[in-house]
Amino acid sequence: MLQLYFHPFACSLAARIALMEADVAARYHLVHLWKKTVVDDGGDFRSVSTKGAVPVLVLEDGATLTENAAILQYIADRRPDLGLAPRPGEPLRYRLQEWLSFIGCEIHKAFLFPTFWYADDAAKAAARQRIGSTLAVASAHLDGNPYLVGDRFTVADGYLAWALLLMPRAGIDLAPWPALSAFLARIQARPQVAAAIAIERQVFKAMARESA
Amino acid sequence: MLQLYFHPFACSLAARIALMEADVAARYHLVHLWKKTVVDDGGDFRSVSTKGAVPVLVLEDGATLTENAAILQYIADRRPDLGLAPRPGEPLRYRLQEWLSFIGCEIHKAFLFPTFWYADDAAKAAARQRIGSTLAVASAHLDGNPYLVGDRFTVADGYLAWALLLMPRAGIDLAPWPALSAFLARIQARPQVAAAIAIERQVFKAMARESA
Repeated sequence: MLQLYFHPFACSLAARIALMEADVAARYHLVHLWKKTVVDDGGDFRSVSTKGAVPVLVLEDGATLTENAAILQYIADRRPDLGLAPRPGEPLRYRLQEWLSFIGCEIHKAFLFPTFWYADDAAKAAARQRIGSTLAVASAHLDGNPYLVGDRFTVADGYLAWALLLMPRAGIDLAPWPALSAFLARIQARPQVAAAIAIERQVFKAMARESA
Repeated sequence: MLQLYFHPFACSLAARIALMEADVAARYHLVHLWKKTVVDDGGDFRSVSTKGAVPVLVLEDGATLTENAAILQYIADRRPDLGLAPRPGEPLRYRLQEWLSFIGCEIHKAFLFPTFWYADDAAKAAARQRIGSTLAVASAHLDGNPYLVGDRFTVADGYLAWALLLMPRAGIDLAPWPALSAFLARIQARPQVAAAIAIERQVFKAMARESA
């Protein structure tokens, strides 16, 4: 069985959404990202992945896969019948890869990461300066297209929905981009996405209670 | 014919390396990244790609592809006989995607981009704090493996070589990571990589002369 190392509402939520949409069973291991421990057994998370970041997907053969751009494609390809990614080699597959890179690099690493992890206000401000033009790229596409890639839900949509879900906490109101708000509502209305978010909300609250 | 929009020593160099290694002919358009103009004809680069960033690959059907993670896989797949990427669907293909994401998000967007584009010193310092542990991940892999993926050169190696080439200009001495220095020397010794770098050096010098 696959195993996913996650932290609630970290970008590993995109991998959980993909697993649940793909109906692929997995064991989920909660990671304490600050302490770098696996909560199950108190083990050292760095021994699972030297990167010390989630998501980490452990495959049946024991190999570990990191980076959402790789993990999400791997999960989608487990169930090619569901169309969670265009088939490898199809022209739209490169469009999926383009969006996965844009979300991972421009939205997550260039904005959300500095906002949540950097202590220095100037460092956060530099990241914040660009997020408007970044979101405008996604908004322009979604103004008229229901999904990021082709005419159906893919793992990239789950990934963007995760990023948009965090925007208010990062101080960004989505109101100037109605196409993004509508997209987020549409993706959140999917039963598996709603269930994935509900699970992480429970875990998040339990962690908050414990550290209170 | 494919068309690549580039700026010398920007990450579009990775796409040029891929095209030359794949022996795929392309027209190259120099972009003035600050002015957002195409140098050929003075045209507005934002009309080529609203992102205003290189690389942009224009396909024969006029579609534009952005983001190295997508462009490099597209180019590699044009010549599957050369093995510049493991074939789509093969297990190693996900390993390639993992490295492309790591180089794009963690090395480029989290470190090189803030270093070269942010004016604020604190913002640069926050990015700089993490680059050691980031490079250590690549170094640990390359200490014993000649290439990032499997036992042959892939487009990911060209991408990492580009990033490492810029480290000294970003104030990072590679001396603490001999495996990275050796890797860079090995990749730079490839005739097509050397030729790609030589071309961009010429363009860079010509641009510097013109603005002097």
